[in-house]
Amino acid sequence: MKKSINVGIIGYGTVGRGTLEVLLDNKDVIKDKTGFTLNVKTVADLKIEEIEDDYLENVTNKTTDAYDVINDKEIDIVIELIGGYSPAKTFIMDSIANKKHVVTANKALLAVDGQDIFQAAEENNVCLGFEGSVGGGIPVIRVLKEDLAANNVKEIYGIINGTANYILTKMEEEEKEFADVLIDAQSLGYAEADPTFDVEGTDTAHKISILSSIAFNTVVPFENVFVEGISNIKCVDVEFAKKLGCKIKLLAIAKKNDNDIEVRVHPTIIPHNYILSKVQDVFNAVYFVSDKLDRTIHYGRGAGSLPTGSAVVSDIITIARDMKCKCPSRVPVLGFTKEYKSYFPVKDINDIESAFYLRFSAEDKPGVLSKIAGVLGKYNISINSAIQPSQTSPGEIVPLVFMTYETIGRNVKNAVDELDNSDFVRDKTVVIRVEGI
Amino acid sequence: MKKSINVGIIGYGTVGRGTLEVLLDNKDVIKDKTGFTLNVKTVADLKIEEIEDDYLENVTNKTTDAYDVINDKEIDIVIELIGGYSPAKTFIMDSIANKKHVVTANKALLAVDGQDIFQAAEENNVCLGFEGSVGGGIPVIRVLKEDLAANNVKEIYGIINGTANYILTKMEEEEKEFADVLIDAQSLGYAEADPTFDVEGTDTAHKISILSSIAFNTVVPFENVFVEGISNIKCVDVEFAKKLGCKIKLLAIAKKNDNDIEVRVHPTIIPHNYILSKVQDVFNAVYFVSDKLDRTIHYGRGAGSLPTGSAVVSDIITIARDMKCKCPSRVPVLGFTKEYKSYFPVKDINDIESAFYLRFSAEDKPGVLSKIAGVLGKYNISINSAIQPSQTSPGEIVPLVFMTYETIGRNVKNAVDELDNSDFVRDKTVVIRVEGI
Repeated sequence: MKKSINVGIIGYGTVGRGTLEVLLDNKDVIKDKTGFTLNVKTVADLKIEEIEDDYLENVTNKTTDAYDVINDKEIDIVIELIGGYSPAKTFIMDSIANKKHVVTANKALLAVDGQDIFQAAEENNVCLGFEGSVGGGIPVIRVLKEDLAANNVKEIYGIINGTANYILTKMEEEEKEFADVLIDAQSLGYAEADPTFDVEGTDTAHKISILSSIAFNTVVPFENVFVEGISNIKCVDVEFAKKLGCKIKLLAIAKKNDNDIEVRVHPTIIPHNYILSKVQDVFNAVYFVSDKLDRTIHYGRGAGSLPTGSAVVSDIITIARDMKCKCPSRVPVLGFTKEYKSYFPVKDINDIESAFYLRFSAEDKPGVLSKIAGVLGKYNISINSAIQPSQTSPGEIVPLVFMTYETIGRNVKNAVDELDNSDFVRDKTVVIRVEGI
Repeated sequence: MKKSINVGIIGYGTVGRGTLEVLLDNKDVIKDKTGFTLNVKTVADLKIEEIEDDYLENVTNKTTDAYDVINDKEIDIVIELIGGYSPAKTFIMDSIANKKHVVTANKALLAVDGQDIFQAAEENNVCLGFEGSVGGGIPVIRVLKEDLAANNVKEIYGIINGTANYILTKMEEEEKEFADVLIDAQSLGYAEADPTFDVEGTDTAHKISILSSIAFNTVVPFENVFVEGISNIKCVDVEFAKKLGCKIKLLAIAKKNDNDIEVRVHPTIIPHNYILSKVQDVFNAVYFVSDKLDRTIHYGRGAGSLPTGSAVVSDIITIARDMKCKCPSRVPVLGFTKEYKSYFPVKDINDIESAFYLRFSAEDKPGVLSKIAGVLGKYNISINSAIQPSQTSPGEIVPLVFMTYETIGRNVKNAVDELDNSDFVRDKTVVIRVEGI
């Protein structure tokens, strides 16, 4: 086989730059590891003429037209790094139709509209790499497809959005409200100008949709994932969690039950001695529980130019190795051999059991605690512990915190609906799911 | 290609049983993931006739003769799980000569005598899988060979012996001495009757020899690894470490410098906020620092029947996929394309810089602390902090603890030699390296 492989990059933003840096700086490392040379033939970006960059100086062809990459017969692997749904999907589908292997880090596209792409790659016998789409530089996709291939993966817990994790870390450390920490995070470059996808859980949901599809041999459509973000988390809840020996994290959770699967993203209270609680700042971690291997955790930088660029290049290397073997279908695109469609119903969030943290705002007067407990009892919710404020004035509105035992979401929803309409609960009750206690 | 692949297992101990269980219980999972069936044709063990086991019931051929596996033309992959140097090496070399792919979890053999085996596999164009040799079920070998192939790995820190980590965890939690915890560990099955390899660091050194070879594109011979075990660690040192906000862990450390490498195993004091300090009990973790990807941590069960069996089966699956592609050399045996020999000198432990914990036993009388500090100063050792006992009687032998700044090992060795021969230091001084402060 030829010893030099040509790649073309479409999209020269943060990850595009990181990918080029890894490919150029570590050309010799890659040669030593694999025996072949990865040559960046073309970089395409709509604003390519405005970009000044030392790495780009070393690339012969710079273009504003993605089709200079997609239609180039000499290019073996197309790297799509523009993100978004359109024209990214068209670029990928056209590359596949041209029998090019494709690497992408586009989690939104794969989660929302992946089926066509997975199927097209398989039908055209080309490789599709997307290690960079989840967990940035942390190997998780390849771990699922190769290392865990002998296991039934039963559960996945992920802290897979650096922005959200950074904000929650700082809310705890600096005892600041969400909005204030968000401003700091934006000024430090840890949050985007429009942070919606990160703080509202959308990005996390894209990623768990991809991970759970691979893990459970099915396609989990993004729209079936329950998503709740962190923008409503208050400092007071972070403080109560701390008093309970816990932290609040934005967790992606996926579980395989006998007849259905759970796939959900929401703020979650986890105990301090739970190892995921040590994943702080912008770091990410994915925790798999498998039937034979038991638990493994994979930790590192979940975003950023070079970590994600490293993951993209690890895909390029995998594809180059598969090209050497003339075997692009060595590992199925999603790691399983069935059709790329959805097999398992996703359980309604209200049918899912977990423990709950409930913070009621109630008037401080005799009998309120027992009234609340009474309504919870009516809906079969057992109370594990409760925190009452110690120094209050009669008539003051105070927070009353309950930790429940495991119960289904519907019970809590119904109880909270009733209580929020009662005359002794004032503001909307805060409900946060609890795991690992 | 054929859709059914025959494997033969040699050695039906803990890992052999786990491997068979994974292969039989998860036959359908593996079929879904890969498209082919893994069929266990033969299990060989010297005591096979004495073993009663439900899984073994499902295997047609049971034999006491390993050559019923090695010489069977229908067997594609030989799984060597007897451990030890001989006859394991002969079995592996003969299997390779018979053009069989080989999977082994034999870290001792690969670390001490791997070169012949690596070379033979390459020359005979067969695969050699050894994911189970390091970190049990945690993917670390494949991570290095595939996921990190675009990176210069600069540093490795590993907690890779479950027995030693269990003992150190219990010494801290239960405030017991090494010898007492060892007895408990043996009665619970977490330590072997002869625990030497585990507690003296030998097993950890075997594993870091393998990891650093792959990471640094070289062969690191086991005999070049500095090894110090945990059997001399005292409860009092665990307590002082705790007072300093630290834990004592048996760490494997490997670093790539410009002209040499460091590869060493020793008890190490690490701070509580260092994430490796959260790796408790029998769990293992490997921490890689790479030039582009930065740090990643890989955590899980580092030993045991099913975790290690899972890793063995993940190798079988990798080989089956490579067989499908008729490409056994898809990834080089050690993950790099150079010859399998040693390229870099391993730095003398006395030339390596680190911070140190020193516990002197000295008579409690005026001037002793300053005498010790004087000798340390003479050898250019700067003191970061010191702990003196608060309530003592004059003339009593007391522990004096110093934490130093970074200095080379030779300075500490010379200073401690001088002090241990002085008239004011009584017992042999305890010296423990410090990382991450």
